[in-house]
Amino acid sequence: MSKNQELGITESKEHNTGEWYAEVVQKAGLANYAPEGMSGFIITRPRGYALWESIQQNLDAKFKKTGVQNAYFPLFIPESYLEREKDIVEGFDPEVAWVTHGGHDELEERLAVRPTSESIIAPYMAQWVRSHRDLPLRVNQWASVVRWEATDTKPFFRTKEFLWQEGHTAHETHDDAWEETITRLDQYQSMYEDLLAIPVLRGQKPDHDKFPGAHTTTTVEALMPDGKSVQAGTSHHLGTSFAEAFDITYSDEDDEIQAAHTTSWGLSWRSLGALIMTHSDDQGLVLPPTIAPEQVVIVPIWQEDTQEEVLSYAEGVKKELEDAGIRVELDAREQHNPGFKFNEWELKGVPVRFEIGPYEVADEEITVVHRPDGESTKEDRDGIAEAVIDHFDEVYAKLYATAEENLAENVREADSREEILGTIGQHGGYVKTPWCGDESCEDVIKEPLSAEIVMCPFDDDEALDDDAVCSICGEQATQTAYFAKNY
Amino acid sequence: MSKNQELGITESKEHNTGEWYAEVVQKAGLANYAPEGMSGFIITRPRGYALWESIQQNLDAKFKKTGVQNAYFPLFIPESYLEREKDIVEGFDPEVAWVTHGGHDELEERLAVRPTSESIIAPYMAQWVRSHRDLPLRVNQWASVVRWEATDTKPFFRTKEFLWQEGHTAHETHDDAWEETITRLDQYQSMYEDLLAIPVLRGQKPDHDKFPGAHTTTTVEALMPDGKSVQAGTSHHLGTSFAEAFDITYSDEDDEIQAAHTTSWGLSWRSLGALIMTHSDDQGLVLPPTIAPEQVVIVPIWQEDTQEEVLSYAEGVKKELEDAGIRVELDAREQHNPGFKFNEWELKGVPVRFEIGPYEVADEEITVVHRPDGESTKEDRDGIAEAVIDHFDEVYAKLYATAEENLAENVREADSREEILGTIGQHGGYVKTPWCGDESCEDVIKEPLSAEIVMCPFDDDEALDDDAVCSICGEQATQTAYFAKNY
Ligand SMILES: [Zn+2]
Ligand SMILES: [Zn+2]
Repeated sequence: MSKNQELGITESKEHNTGEWYAEVVQKAGLANYAPEGMSGFIITRPRGYALWESIQQNLDAKFKKTGVQNAYFPLFIPESYLEREKDIVEGFDPEVAWVTHGGHDELEERLAVRPTSESIIAPYMAQWVRSHRDLPLRVNQWASVVRWEATDTKPFFRTKEFLWQEGHTAHETHDDAWEETITRLDQYQSMYEDLLAIPVLRGQKPDHDKFPGAHTTTTVEALMPDGKSVQAGTSHHLGTSFAEAFDITYSDEDDEIQAAHTTSWGLSWRSLGALIMTHSDDQGLVLPPTIAPEQVVIVPIWQEDTQEEVLSYAEGVKKELEDAGIRVELDAREQHNPGFKFNEWELKGVPVRFEIGPYEVADEEITVVHRPDGESTKEDRDGIAEAVIDHFDEVYAKLYATAEENLAENVREADSREEILGTIGQHGGYVKTPWCGDESCEDVIKEPLSAEIVMCPFDDDEALDDDAVCSICGEQATQTAYFAKNY
Repeated sequence: MSKNQELGITESKEHNTGEWYAEVVQKAGLANYAPEGMSGFIITRPRGYALWESIQQNLDAKFKKTGVQNAYFPLFIPESYLEREKDIVEGFDPEVAWVTHGGHDELEERLAVRPTSESIIAPYMAQWVRSHRDLPLRVNQWASVVRWEATDTKPFFRTKEFLWQEGHTAHETHDDAWEETITRLDQYQSMYEDLLAIPVLRGQKPDHDKFPGAHTTTTVEALMPDGKSVQAGTSHHLGTSFAEAFDITYSDEDDEIQAAHTTSWGLSWRSLGALIMTHSDDQGLVLPPTIAPEQVVIVPIWQEDTQEEVLSYAEGVKKELEDAGIRVELDAREQHNPGFKFNEWELKGVPVRFEIGPYEVADEEITVVHRPDGESTKEDRDGIAEAVIDHFDEVYAKLYATAEENLAENVREADSREEILGTIGQHGGYVKTPWCGDESCEDVIKEPLSAEIVMCPFDDDEALDDDAVCSICGEQATQTAYFAKNY
């Protein structure tokens, strides 16, 4: 086995998706597994964390433009607060990490490391809201949360600690809260589509799969290459149930006390997992230029007698790109040959490569290579900082088109239990079908195949025929359901 | 007691600094105390968190421009890792919060909630560094840490959980590590002086007060209005001690294995405490325009017959400022009179107030009032977005000058034990004096007064006379020492 092969990816995306994914994450320098005694945790390395920072910045700017303020609540939540939430929120019983000792002393009350913060945020929202003039109130927190679920670790998809944001808002009316819910869902969708080059499906969860206590849970879903759906972000309309339980009330214009209508919405670093999983290939990480830490790598190709002129030309190119605000790396290492460098930067996911050798210098050109498909073109040296933007757009368009095509090919229709089972069993992906709304009709798909209804499109997006019947029981259909296996 | 008084600050900064500080923090909407069972924790409200975000952005940009990358390490650290650090780092014995249970199961090994992360960062740095080509390695983490110290809570100054950054770097040589140490100290100083308008003193800690295991601990110190010094940020040159203990080694150009020279440096939300404490007054929060969430508040002053024209004029001004990138709030609430609004925005620390009434509209002017001192001037409506920048500079200069004057007045010299004790006892502040370097000469000041040597200036900044003698023992002096009470 040559050194290059050891450094490179050895697993196949198509045949061994799970192992391939783990290898890409580690070899592209995104994350390491945590040490013994810490199974389920990861170390997020700078290249991985930079991607998360981009996602944060993108969403944070969107949030702030639409009236959201960030805040920070304690890492710990008293057990009695979680118990209170359990009483309120049917089905809420998170597995958490418990702090029992502070210093050398046992605590009087155990503290949970936050699995989510609504049980401590809601009581403070109740304090801060007095009058209708205090509404809408919109608070968001970027933080890490811990859920002690004993599962196989899959970096960014499944870890005991993960990074996320959770937003909580309070409004005067049901409609205001609905508008908020959809605003956040739109922002998640736009982050996936415009930053990560991942098309998503949007809709709402079946009633029996809503966030406990929610009026409506909306979701964006992304299709992964192994045919499973990822719940990529959720936005909940909570109605007045949380407000009533936590006393988030306001006095309206007539001085009457009213319960607020609240929402919550969250997106985690699972988005980063989806990004890595969607575009990468058997050579390693593939990133759209929108988010790549280095958008361009310049690899100079020289002999001893041409080294000086090639390097000086390459440095000029680098400076021009930098001045134009482009993230560029010049790989002038002398101990590696160009082929080694090509492999390494492909592994690391740099979307555009500039090759510069004596011919390029002589012709005042640059050879431009696209990471996803190896397409190679020549560009004039003159105006390169502008020309490269077009290449970014092209690379982005290629990635988006491939993902979009994959999604379109993998939404199939079926109109019987057997056909649903057979289609998902054979192809994975989504099966859309008319559904009566009854959980038992989901169960007959879930039990044999662990595929479930991941979302039902909003009526405005996909209306059902009036005479449609449920594919499973034959009763009147009320919604279109998308069945899929999921993460 | 009128409603205004209840809303406003009732304590005196001069006579009751601690109570006054707590009142400003709460009434300006910066933080709340955490609920029962969580003493020592705080809720950082949006107005407080926005200030921390500004500090983060300022430092993060500086770090990134100088080669630092962010990463994220697990929230928990196995007990054996902390034990290992205890073996290495004499005197390291943090009081921590212990996680003993995950879900319903007791853990085999207790996990500490990170009190600081070097014991988990260092082993990974050891993995990532192989060759001299991997150096320098610079990793930073923004995170929350927990130290279970049972003390009176003082928001941002003393809390069991606090937000901070810790940077860890590895270098080839001692000098490289020293340059790094000073680069970070310079960045801390510049953040304090240019963003927070707080002049600081800089220097190094006495040998007996260094970070355990460090070669040199450098510090920036800020003087608070109660005459105490705050350790405002520290940057440690760790020599090779950490590298040797954690095996952070590299092969040099001759393929010889060498221990790296490492540094670490940290700054917490204590900086936010220093900001609030330094500039605020008996009317509430005072902020420099560099960091204020709202730089300008426009308060319209109308009668029924002038409301429309005043409001329309004010809206035009607001739009012009916004378009120029200025953070501006127009307070058009009808239920409050201008006096109420003045008080409220003074309490909240908006540095510049625009008053706009019928006279301003008629004369095409704006009345501009500075928060810190109430200075009022008229400006032409035309060109207001440029003129206001000068006002920001003036307000900043006023705040900085006041703090600088206070600092200059409170550095005093003394040349005997009695004089040191007497001076600090009477005035607080700093006493600078020649010192032999012996801890026992600090003890005789520390015991009666709990004042200690908070820093010794670098030789380049303040050289000692050759014949100077220690003020306490009369032996040859080796350093200038600054004694002060501290937080
Ligand atoms: Zn049915
Ligand atoms: Zn002495």
